[in-house]
Amino acid sequence: MKTRTRPVAAHAGVVEIELIERLTRGFERSPYQLNRRHETDAELVRIPGTDLTLAITTDGVSEEIETGLYADPWLVGWMTVTVNASDLAAVGAAPLGLLVSETLPPTMTADEVRALQQGLAEACRAHGLPLLGGDTNAGSRLHMGATAVGLAPGGTSLTRVGCRPGDTLYASGPLGSGTAFALLQLTAKTDGDAIDTLCFQPVARLAEGQAIRTLASACMDTSDGAVTTLDELMRLNATGIRVDLAVEDYLDQAALQVARAAGIPAWMLLAGPHGEFELIFTIPPEHEVELEAVARSMNWRPLRLGSVVAAPGLELPLDGVSRTLDTTRIRNLYSESGGDLAAYRAGLDRSIDR
Amino acid sequence: MKTRTRPVAAHAGVVEIELIERLTRGFERSPYQLNRRHETDAELVRIPGTDLTLAITTDGVSEEIETGLYADPWLVGWMTVTVNASDLAAVGAAPLGLLVSETLPPTMTADEVRALQQGLAEACRAHGLPLLGGDTNAGSRLHMGATAVGLAPGGTSLTRVGCRPGDTLYASGPLGSGTAFALLQLTAKTDGDAIDTLCFQPVARLAEGQAIRTLASACMDTSDGAVTTLDELMRLNATGIRVDLAVEDYLDQAALQVARAAGIPAWMLLAGPHGEFELIFTIPPEHEVELEAVARSMNWRPLRLGSVVAAPGLELPLDGVSRTLDTTRIRNLYSESGGDLAAYRAGLDRSIDR
Repeated sequence: MKTRTRPVAAHAGVVEIELIERLTRGFERSPYQLNRRHETDAELVRIPGTDLTLAITTDGVSEEIETGLYADPWLVGWMTVTVNASDLAAVGAAPLGLLVSETLPPTMTADEVRALQQGLAEACRAHGLPLLGGDTNAGSRLHMGATAVGLAPGGTSLTRVGCRPGDTLYASGPLGSGTAFALLQLTAKTDGDAIDTLCFQPVARLAEGQAIRTLASACMDTSDGAVTTLDELMRLNATGIRVDLAVEDYLDQAALQVARAAGIPAWMLLAGPHGEFELIFTIPPEHEVELEAVARSMNWRPLRLGSVVAAPGLELPLDGVSRTLDTTRIRNLYSESGGDLAAYRAGLDRSIDR
Repeated sequence: MKTRTRPVAAHAGVVEIELIERLTRGFERSPYQLNRRHETDAELVRIPGTDLTLAITTDGVSEEIETGLYADPWLVGWMTVTVNASDLAAVGAAPLGLLVSETLPPTMTADEVRALQQGLAEACRAHGLPLLGGDTNAGSRLHMGATAVGLAPGGTSLTRVGCRPGDTLYASGPLGSGTAFALLQLTAKTDGDAIDTLCFQPVARLAEGQAIRTLASACMDTSDGAVTTLDELMRLNATGIRVDLAVEDYLDQAALQVARAAGIPAWMLLAGPHGEFELIFTIPPEHEVELEAVARSMNWRPLRLGSVVAAPGLELPLDGVSRTLDTTRIRNLYSESGGDLAAYRAGLDRSIDR
């Protein structure tokens, strides 16, 4: 475990994180837990008497169901698994299994329940996550949650903390499909072609996470969108980030089409709070060659976005001009807008320097 | 792990279990998982490369909230921890930690959220379960779930399967307080004195579960009420159970008072689907002496209820006369009654031989 200390008040101004800080006050910590809050995507617990680390994470998809973002029961099942698998990926753990907690309302049809279970089962298979057990309740609203467990060797852990200026910034794959999907779903522009081309069915980067476990200096998934991930890495490490790659070169091509059709600037696909479940990670100079070799051996092409820099803030080139994003503002914007997409869009417009 | 095979169709007729069977069809199993469905209160997974077993369980309290059974936010928090701790207790695991998944509605006041968190934190302390992490969502309804993890040495596991005719049947403590509490809550007989005397705030039997891990031939908690537990043990082991102790001698005294005040027969306190989170376990003759010694050393007085017998069915003495309960019927009765307590009561009356 890296011992770098998290800067005091690293999360000032981010409403969601401040809520978590308030809620978890007064709880005792485990002497075996390796991470502190916010430092990892999954909790890391040393298994006493062994050289192993247990990775464990719990995540639900209730907001996505309530807002109508996930309307298809199959997708609800698929995502219930994927959001948790992605947290294991971000700490470089090998999957051990999954527990699912379902609250099924009486209004669901048998076909819908079947589709939901099929989405769960297919995602479990796709991620190599056997179903260990779960809990089924009746309730007035559909509510899905899951817990994923995995294992990592002891010694070094992959966390969000540890990168330094000079490290290279990568994404495990193209970004933007999560926001593009949300845009299509929530604006009810049921452009069948666009949705088909987009085909939002993310698979967590479990193999990639394990491959970079000892190479990356920091890693986090993009479950809450790329801007949130970049903001969080900057806060936890007290650094800035400079992206060098042009936005068109690391955005998902189908997502770009959606953005164009909707008339929104491409960079906004990085900003939405619903991400694409890629990993964003940093590699110190001394591990660059090994990363390339490992990636080649698994036929994986991580995208080299830019670098970690000392000066705070997220800088990225848009139409060839270097711009700065107000990432704190962007993180709060969607919930502040109360679901008003026009207000959200206007807020995003104001979050970029002119 | 005991290798006794679960009888085919052991759960025929129990609606809730049939649902779970249907939902979990088509999922892959882990080669490391030691238990099959229904055989344990918590899932048991061998940790590869070690001599340890991971115990993991996930359980929510949504139905209890929706029905108004848990109306006090502090109790909601307390029970969210306890229901999961109790599953660890029933497999004899030492607690490692807890993850909590909360969906908080905007209608909750700050005081209510504080009370909820305090209930969580106090129960975590009472059970020696450090909070490892969790997930917080906003939603239209309060929904609480948690996952508890624990460890047990490899080799023997404590499961629901393994008892034989001739084993002695024990309860870890007095029964009936869960049903008595539900009766008071749901009939809105806000008899302050009765509720105060009852003081429903169960603590899971973690130390006791660990103490009997290598002594008991089977164990299960009474989270769904004593009759459900006894029925499940009989099904899984293809045995019957004969209780010898008079019902007044193993029921909680405050719970008995509640039953008397409500004019319901004492035995019905065993039947309700909301239990008291005790353990019911069986001890083979050759371990009786050691159980007594262990119990004495921890100042614990398990209640010797009766025996496992070969003839199927649950037999118990009521007013000195041996009676038989239709435990399958009782398990389905509450959900069949749709919350109509008079119908439920009438159904219970018909579930006993005359």
